[in-house]
Amino acid sequence: MKHQFTPKKYYTTLGSHEPSLRVARGDTIVTTIIDAFGRDASGDQVGPSGNPQTGPFYVEGADPGDTLAMRIDSIWPNRKFGNTRPRIAQIVLDPQYTNISISSEFIQFEIDQGAKTARLQNGPSGLSELTVPLRPMLGCFGVAPSGGQAISTATSGHHGGNMDYNGFVAGVTAYLPVFVEGALLHVGDGHAWQGDGEILGAGIEISMDITFTVDVIKGKRIAWPRGENETHIFTAGNARPLDQAIQHATTEMLRWLQEDYGFDATEANILLGTFVEYEVGNVIDPAFTMVCKLPKQSLQRRKSM
Amino acid sequence: MKHQFTPKKYYTTLGSHEPSLRVARGDTIVTTIIDAFGRDASGDQVGPSGNPQTGPFYVEGADPGDTLAMRIDSIWPNRKFGNTRPRIAQIVLDPQYTNISISSEFIQFEIDQGAKTARLQNGPSGLSELTVPLRPMLGCFGVAPSGGQAISTATSGHHGGNMDYNGFVAGVTAYLPVFVEGALLHVGDGHAWQGDGEILGAGIEISMDITFTVDVIKGKRIAWPRGENETHIFTAGNARPLDQAIQHATTEMLRWLQEDYGFDATEANILLGTFVEYEVGNVIDPAFTMVCKLPKQSLQRRKSM
Amino acid sequence: MKHQFTPKKYYTTLGSHEPSLRVARGDTIVTTIIDAFGRDASGDQVGPSGNPQTGPFYVEGADPGDTLAMRIDSIWPNRKFGNTRPRIAQIVLDPQYTNISISSEFIQFEIDQGAKTARLQNGPSGLSELTVPLRPMLGCFGVAPSGGQAISTATSGHHGGNMDYNGFVAGVTAYLPVFVEGALLHVGDGHAWQGDGEILGAGIEISMDITFTVDVIKGKRIAWPRGENETHIFTAGNARPLDQAIQHATTEMLRWLQEDYGFDATEANILLGTFVEYEVGNVIDPAFTMVCKLPKQSLQRRKSM
Amino acid sequence: MKHQFTPKKYYTTLGSHEPSLRVARGDTIVTTIIDAFGRDASGDQVGPSGNPQTGPFYVEGADPGDTLAMRIDSIWPNRKFGNTRPRIAQIVLDPQYTNISISSEFIQFEIDQGAKTARLQNGPSGLSELTVPLRPMLGCFGVAPSGGQAISTATSGHHGGNMDYNGFVAGVTAYLPVFVEGALLHVGDGHAWQGDGEILGAGIEISMDITFTVDVIKGKRIAWPRGENETHIFTAGNARPLDQAIQHATTEMLRWLQEDYGFDATEANILLGTFVEYEVGNVIDPAFTMVCKLPKQSLQRRKSM
Repeated sequence: MKHQFTPKKYYTTLGSHEPSLRVARGDTIVTTIIDAFGRDASGDQVGPSGNPQTGPFYVEGADPGDTLAMRIDSIWPNRKFGNTRPRIAQIVLDPQYTNISISSEFIQFEIDQGAKTARLQNGPSGLSELTVPLRPMLGCFGVAPSGGQAISTATSGHHGGNMDYNGFVAGVTAYLPVFVEGALLHVGDGHAWQGDGEILGAGIEISMDITFTVDVIKGKRIAWPRGENETHIFTAGNARPLDQAIQHATTEMLRWLQEDYGFDATEANILLGTFVEYEVGNVIDPAFTMVCKLPKQSLQRRKSM
Repeated sequence: MKHQFTPKKYYTTLGSHEPSLRVARGDTIVTTIIDAFGRDASGDQVGPSGNPQTGPFYVEGADPGDTLAMRIDSIWPNRKFGNTRPRIAQIVLDPQYTNISISSEFIQFEIDQGAKTARLQNGPSGLSELTVPLRPMLGCFGVAPSGGQAISTATSGHHGGNMDYNGFVAGVTAYLPVFVEGALLHVGDGHAWQGDGEILGAGIEISMDITFTVDVIKGKRIAWPRGENETHIFTAGNARPLDQAIQHATTEMLRWLQEDYGFDATEANILLGTFVEYEVGNVIDPAFTMVCKLPKQSLQRRKSM
Repeated sequence: MKHQFTPKKYYTTLGSHEPSLRVARGDTIVTTIIDAFGRDASGDQVGPSGNPQTGPFYVEGADPGDTLAMRIDSIWPNRKFGNTRPRIAQIVLDPQYTNISISSEFIQFEIDQGAKTARLQNGPSGLSELTVPLRPMLGCFGVAPSGGQAISTATSGHHGGNMDYNGFVAGVTAYLPVFVEGALLHVGDGHAWQGDGEILGAGIEISMDITFTVDVIKGKRIAWPRGENETHIFTAGNARPLDQAIQHATTEMLRWLQEDYGFDATEANILLGTFVEYEVGNVIDPAFTMVCKLPKQSLQRRKSM
Repeated sequence: MKHQFTPKKYYTTLGSHEPSLRVARGDTIVTTIIDAFGRDASGDQVGPSGNPQTGPFYVEGADPGDTLAMRIDSIWPNRKFGNTRPRIAQIVLDPQYTNISISSEFIQFEIDQGAKTARLQNGPSGLSELTVPLRPMLGCFGVAPSGGQAISTATSGHHGGNMDYNGFVAGVTAYLPVFVEGALLHVGDGHAWQGDGEILGAGIEISMDITFTVDVIKGKRIAWPRGENETHIFTAGNARPLDQAIQHATTEMLRWLQEDYGFDATEANILLGTFVEYEVGNVIDPAFTMVCKLPKQSLQRRKSM
């Protein structure tokens, strides 16, 4: 079933909020997300700042201990401008290298829907031609966390949240652990484009039209968000510092290979160690995100046996 | 001028050792490197274990405060087998996730020079077909460090060293800061293939034929190793933890954009923040390596002005 | 006014829960806390495991932007046994040093109220005499966090929480930022004794009688928990890794010296740099705690001017 | 035997330099160290800046695999002034909290040998009375490292080096692993006083008279510097980040308890977890230092059995 959903309320925590819509396994939701500052497709302030979320969506049949699957069918900017920051976050620079002279005022990109690009407006003279192709991504999404927690949409954890990974694009299926009945899925924080690490402290922040389809894998427990696209499977570890985030992601991938692909421990170690690709999700949020990827091609060697 | 150089002695520190060959700016050196364990093209133990280095090469005209450029013209395995480890290093796994039951014995890959592949020998049954394309890289290279230091080839720093970054392949030009007269370039530690991060604690360790060409950029000071290939420029930050390595690499790229490409501070911040790509060099050596990359295409916007 | 309060309900998140008691500025609360596992003075399971909290207490007159002061008047074990773990957490050991052979079963200490000591029961033969003086501390306490969050009592943050610092003993006044009306103070997780860092993953966990007195400093904003005892003022930074925790604590102390003690920036830097003492709160919870202390004696030099 | 030694040459690396004096096991050396900037008791520049070292001292009978014991018999300032910095290092402050407006010029303390104090000269008005008791310590000392390395006196490692721990005072016996024949002990970098962590980037840097006595524990291998004073035994872990330094120190103490005190693994875990005290050596050098301490009193429980 396909649901057209118009959000009326937005949350800045991921928690066990009153569901805004109940959907069944296999259902598709067509909706919108407002930008990180709370502005909608018209640029009107309709929600709070801080990655306000559309939802939560109660998925029937999802119980604690299951895994929620969420395929991003499409995500696309629904307005003509997006904003980002002009200054690299001090946390990714040497402590003694001070960036303080640079303005922290937001700068604006204009969206060209025909060309599928975003172009910097009124940028400094040396960047007057700065244009990027649109590569729309979902910065923050997740389920209600465990133990009755309500966790700020500024950060991320086992439950997903503000991972700001530029690989969460249309065509990806994300997997999230379910902690509460109905899972309570939230989505928000669209970026028309974002460099690795979100080191400007923002992508090109913009409101989006989004369509996604949910399903439940009964009785399947996972520890961290997982995902897959046409070419790769991947895991996302969320923590500070990066060293801990990479530990979570790598360990989760080892579990995945053993529990779901049938490799034994030695096989999983060799396979992952040989083919692993790491990507930096974000290095500026309260929890950082490291992504551990494996090409599906490397897995097929196994499956063809 | 092209030098054919046959190494007789190998060092396991990067330091101000007696030069093994003096070369001029623009010269090309054709030589060999033995594997990380000290074995040569015949598999004979001819040097110490621990990333033994060929060299050092004294580059005439290189003085402290200059930058040494070293283009890797070619690097290719010169024997039929290479070895790696079967167990992911505990440091990239959750502390409570113990990998200890897995053997730490080296495993072997057979090189197929015709197919340009490496195939796992006697691997576990689930990986009996495990084959990778050859992607030969230089794991450890660098100059004599500052202040009369002699630094183990197990680790890395401002001077280069054991960065174990799988992007140091043929076609790359690496740039290193010069700390002593003649720079004293060392090269070693070839990998026929390596996953990101070298999380097995090894690539496919093998002896290599290597050809490289050196030059000096007079009066140019850099703080960290830099490099470029056809598509990207990049910087390498070497430190623990990853958070500090990423700070070094990102800061060095900001300097590069401003000092050499003529961007002002705001332009450099926006450009880098927009287009940055991060890669994990290694996450298992005493110093980790994070690589900060920028597509050359993003820089051409500037140059066309 | 003095309140005798008997808790009926216990929370394992710090959040905007229904107040269990309303108190005025200057009031004293005499109550009990159950142990980290939910057991009361009789050893009965009366609450959930995971640092269940007594409260929350609504302090009249406390508004967002104020500071809550909470003096721990007394805290003392109210039963005859407490439990701890026998195994040092893997996270404070070298990754390759495996502790796995050691049992993770809880061990028990018997409390001698007369001697004011705790003695290990049925310990290994080499520790048959292991006795510690009682040094009762409050492991977890804090206010409702900002933004409608509800944060697990496993961890800590700006709002306090599970800091597991063995300096939170009777006689200390703790200061916490107020984020919601009434502050909503929670208290729990008593330890009869705890080594630095709580590296066993537990102190001697025990239920307690506790008396504390609350007050509000109107219009005073602080960023991190602060405290003082007879000899020192201190700040607590809560984060991972330790490097970030020490940054929070040190920065907060610099602010304190300038905002409240009237030192200028240079004076505050010299004074703090000269006299600083660091203590490790915990190094095993999701957020670590580092404490930055200054002897009051060093501050009196200023006040005598 | 007691040696009066007058240094003529100073090193800024710890390495296998030509011995300046050969001494026997049990010998005492009476000598001087110049300050971190290379200035002697008269304030004359007689050596290089950067923690120049007196020595190295070749200790007869010390072989690789042994442990060198070095008792600091006395260490005392031999001139009237010392210098420190007025600005807390950015690395221990929140990235966004900029300290940049504060001068980085050195400030001076005057030594009062009678009162055994140091008093700030020309300090800011709010600190006109700033006086500290003398607490002279040895900032940097160590042996020639393994593998032919020569490591800068700016940093530390297995071999000791620039640990900048304010607990290395007269009365302490330090233990260092021996990597080369004769151990090759270096000493330097005296501080008349230093706060925890050396967060100003310096203690009160001053030249010193120093007397120390060496011995060798044959066949005893240790991994990290150890020490003891009247009340405690301790280990020093040197690394970045603090999390790794604390791992080294804690693991080394577990080994000490098992190898030398005869506790089994469970006993060592319980004992250390119960009585551990951590101290921050330095948090500003290339490698940080964390110290793991145990009261000797806690060990006597064992020995009385």
